[in-house]
Amino acid sequence: MRNRVNILLAKNQYANDREFMARAIRLAERGAYTTYPNPCVGCVIVKNNEIIGEGWHIEAGKEHAEINALNDAGISNVKDATVYLTLEPCSHKGRTGPCSTALVKAQVAKVIVAMLDPNPLVSGQGMQELKDNGIEVEVAVLQNQSEQLNLGYIKRMQTGRPRVRNKMAMSLDGRTALASGESKWITSEESRHDVQKLRASSSCILTGVGTVLADNPSMNVRIDGILQQPLRAIIDTHLSTPLDAKILAQQGKTIIFTGRNDDGDVQRFARHGVEVIVIPRKGNNLDLAAIIDHLGKLQINEILLEAGATLSGAMLQAGLIDELIIYMAPVLLGNKSRGIFNLSNLETMNQKISLNIIEQRAIGVDWRIRATVVKTDKK
Amino acid sequence: MRNRVNILLAKNQYANDREFMARAIRLAERGAYTTYPNPCVGCVIVKNNEIIGEGWHIEAGKEHAEINALNDAGISNVKDATVYLTLEPCSHKGRTGPCSTALVKAQVAKVIVAMLDPNPLVSGQGMQELKDNGIEVEVAVLQNQSEQLNLGYIKRMQTGRPRVRNKMAMSLDGRTALASGESKWITSEESRHDVQKLRASSSCILTGVGTVLADNPSMNVRIDGILQQPLRAIIDTHLSTPLDAKILAQQGKTIIFTGRNDDGDVQRFARHGVEVIVIPRKGNNLDLAAIIDHLGKLQINEILLEAGATLSGAMLQAGLIDELIIYMAPVLLGNKSRGIFNLSNLETMNQKISLNIIEQRAIGVDWRIRATVVKTDKK
Repeated sequence: MRNRVNILLAKNQYANDREFMARAIRLAERGAYTTYPNPCVGCVIVKNNEIIGEGWHIEAGKEHAEINALNDAGISNVKDATVYLTLEPCSHKGRTGPCSTALVKAQVAKVIVAMLDPNPLVSGQGMQELKDNGIEVEVAVLQNQSEQLNLGYIKRMQTGRPRVRNKMAMSLDGRTALASGESKWITSEESRHDVQKLRASSSCILTGVGTVLADNPSMNVRIDGILQQPLRAIIDTHLSTPLDAKILAQQGKTIIFTGRNDDGDVQRFARHGVEVIVIPRKGNNLDLAAIIDHLGKLQINEILLEAGATLSGAMLQAGLIDELIIYMAPVLLGNKSRGIFNLSNLETMNQKISLNIIEQRAIGVDWRIRATVVKTDKK
Repeated sequence: MRNRVNILLAKNQYANDREFMARAIRLAERGAYTTYPNPCVGCVIVKNNEIIGEGWHIEAGKEHAEINALNDAGISNVKDATVYLTLEPCSHKGRTGPCSTALVKAQVAKVIVAMLDPNPLVSGQGMQELKDNGIEVEVAVLQNQSEQLNLGYIKRMQTGRPRVRNKMAMSLDGRTALASGESKWITSEESRHDVQKLRASSSCILTGVGTVLADNPSMNVRIDGILQQPLRAIIDTHLSTPLDAKILAQQGKTIIFTGRNDDGDVQRFARHGVEVIVIPRKGNNLDLAAIIDHLGKLQINEILLEAGATLSGAMLQAGLIDELIIYMAPVLLGNKSRGIFNLSNLETMNQKISLNIIEQRAIGVDWRIRATVVKTDKK
């Protein structure tokens, strides 16, 4: 009988743990547009099954989620409490003190984390410090859901490379513009607003000089609550971006990746506040992998690629795209219109690009398709 | 107080009516593959809130749904019962006796129908006969749902033309084959099985000679429970279908629409059991509207168009497609591959074909997109 009661209590506790962690994840999401290069983290502090403190990380250089939650609860109230955290507490002294030490000092009884630190060099160290100081620890409550908060950060920590999402807009028959180039209003206002949210959740908007010359886009975020514009980056082999392009005139920083190594050019752009970075060539084009690696060194977690059919196709075939986000408008433009991806040397069916469609969602009259790339035909 | 009780009873009755009609609709669906050229109809007979008889129409020339339900209940039991019917009972003597008269004779108390007969010449006459004989009548319970059973039949009754659904298979980027023509296995086995169900629910499979020559398809239904293969029809302006094409060798009937008026040709195909029908030309091609009209005269309700990019595009631009059913595979084939719709003279964005996406559904790893055509660029 006692055993059955214990099982029931354990079941209840399991449900409670998930509920509190779900709350911590929702708190973490509030930082989606503002924490980079840091991850989004949420924290809930619970005593006698009641939440006594909540916090989330808002901005790099400011307090981590744990500290905000400890302050919210009041440091004198947290003794013997249980702490729910979407990510293992840091144990190294970063721009703020190590959070694991703060939790030890606060004398909490238990710390439950959704996932360990994805950085293989420090993963598990925060939990170890807690254990060494007699705090009960538990890992992997709602781990999958928590990972979704920081896919870019996790990828960069594990591989050095940012995650790359490629946003495209097309007609139902895979066309982006008429043969003449006319492409206005293929997708709806709702889709264009959704793109703004994609940009806001990215640390870098990457485009090609072809798009800059054809459309003169601003590539900035035009929604409220943004502390910092994402970095804008242009791939421009021959450095032909005009100095009066709109993309160079926006708040925040724009950089240009080029193959032209010329001090005069660098100076000319520098005077407009634009940094020019020389990248080695690979064949006729720039080494795209070197560009993504460089953005990883700049602590970029999430790249949103917004480019034309040629650059997007080349990135796909180079195996550099993690996810496609395609806005599909309910129109047909026919086979003479311009297609969405230029893929070179695709001669047999087994060279096709295979995808996993992970989401289909109506956005106004359009549909947004999210797909991960299964296998790319690397060259 | 009494009034409130009456309102509650009325609400309950409303819910009951919908529940019984929903059951009648599910019965009607059982005829989806077998009733043409007749509509699918279901019938439920209820006494004291209990179902005492059920029936549905199975096959043209056999009993209508009402008669099957009356027989199921036993004719001596149905006096004062309520009859739920997905379609107004016929009042004319067709291949079977008029059902309205049978219901009068059975002395039922009330007949509730989801919708009136869509044929404007007889619409309402069945209900009138019931009313004239003192039977209570009610119309439009679950009307929308019931209309979905017989969209092709309704369209043909109202306009003389069958409904045309155009099935296509494509990659996510709108391609049907590599530049070389290779197209095997773009979509999955689940999608190909789903196409079989589409064919089974159609009274005619329409294709073009280009598809016959390129793929040599059978265009038949290969699932159980089929009483009759749909009519197969080939659009073949120059009458170049080979006599040994698989499509001519299947069970059931194949017809060819051509522009070549030559008795020798007609005899040659007639000897293989294939009827050749000469259609007037419109420019270089056959008059596609005349073909659809001809199929309407053959009592075809539902045409499934399975053709290539040229015929499908021409049908779209002629305003002859009611619904697109597109199987989208999670692969990319790139801009050199073959596109899904050839649309001619599409020079400005306002000539685009506008669609309403009415359903997106996962079929295995593929997605099936159903879309109605909003406005076509008729010429």
